[in-house]
Amino acid sequence: MEPSKFEEKTTKRTEIFKGKIIDVFVDDVTLPDGRSATRELVLHHGAVAVLAVTDQQKIVLVRQFRKPLERDTLEIPAGKIDPGEEHAPLHTAKRELEEETDYQAETWNEIVGMYSTPGFSDEFLTIYEAKQLKKADRPLDQDEDEFLQCEELTLAQVKEAIKSGLICDAKTLYAVTYWELQLTKGGTEAS
Amino acid sequence: MEPSKFEEKTTKRTEIFKGKIIDVFVDDVTLPDGRSATRELVLHHGAVAVLAVTDQQKIVLVRQFRKPLERDTLEIPAGKIDPGEEHAPLHTAKRELEEETDYQAETWNEIVGMYSTPGFSDEFLTIYEAKQLKKADRPLDQDEDEFLQCEELTLAQVKEAIKSGLICDAKTLYAVTYWELQLTKGGTEAS
Repeated sequence: MEPSKFEEKTTKRTEIFKGKIIDVFVDDVTLPDGRSATRELVLHHGAVAVLAVTDQQKIVLVRQFRKPLERDTLEIPAGKIDPGEEHAPLHTAKRELEEETDYQAETWNEIVGMYSTPGFSDEFLTIYEAKQLKKADRPLDQDEDEFLQCEELTLAQVKEAIKSGLICDAKTLYAVTYWELQLTKGGTEAS
Repeated sequence: MEPSKFEEKTTKRTEIFKGKIIDVFVDDVTLPDGRSATRELVLHHGAVAVLAVTDQQKIVLVRQFRKPLERDTLEIPAGKIDPGEEHAPLHTAKRELEEETDYQAETWNEIVGMYSTPGFSDEFLTIYEAKQLKKADRPLDQDEDEFLQCEELTLAQVKEAIKSGLICDAKTLYAVTYWELQLTKGGTEAS
């Protein structure tokens, strides 16, 4: 990638918060025209998500309470990358799918990597497609502080859930649009 | 929407940081099983983004430096909702499109609203589709601390930019997948 013409050089970094999920910093930066500005940064270890489609052409989703929204959402299975897993996101994806839905998959395919909100965060999310699903004989336990309910929806039901606002997050909206595109193309092209 | 079975009640909220873009809090919560946990929250006023497609079927993108990534990205035009604009996101979208690209549009259509990363943030982004573009005679100035370059790409060029990693953010990946879906369907359905 070519060097940036617009680079903002950090002159000072102030640590605001070190959390379990996020770290927060404020950087003083020098702008390309020499003036100064501040940038608020939320640093994150990254995450994975899984577009899991059953042989009956239903997408596997997870209903859960989201504290920042103060309500339930319906999202594709996802989870944070633990320390030490940074170089094995597929491993995380397989674990999260099984923990959250009891499903294992025969075939895995990386669809895309995306920054969730690059204006203030470096959170990077890798989305995988999982096919040929089967329920695990002895599935992994869910995380201690996660309360979830697995649901399987057709594309028509997904569209209703988008209208009602239950499906409302970027990764899930991307994944179902990607899925509909594959179905529309006849499933013959991998994008 | 039905009430949540998984609600986490806040027992205490601790303010960590009040910034220009984000506010950070840590909530102590009671889980559905009665145990306690903490939740890290990044609150945000919301944002808009614009899928602007020219009559030549090129998408209008903006190259800019993203401090959390320490590099340039190519994204659809977007911007934060200013205080007082909360109930008029379309107004923000029109302003951001003109400020960042000099374009005005004859027709506007809301595509979707999405939470960028609901695990820790309430940032809500509304994406509009803008068509029948024309350059403004006397376009609005860019924000003082924004350095941008407007670029127009065909769908094939967009796919190259995704491969190279230059297009890498959730809203832009959603928007171009949505665009490709409309093109694949023949542009006859508004989804």
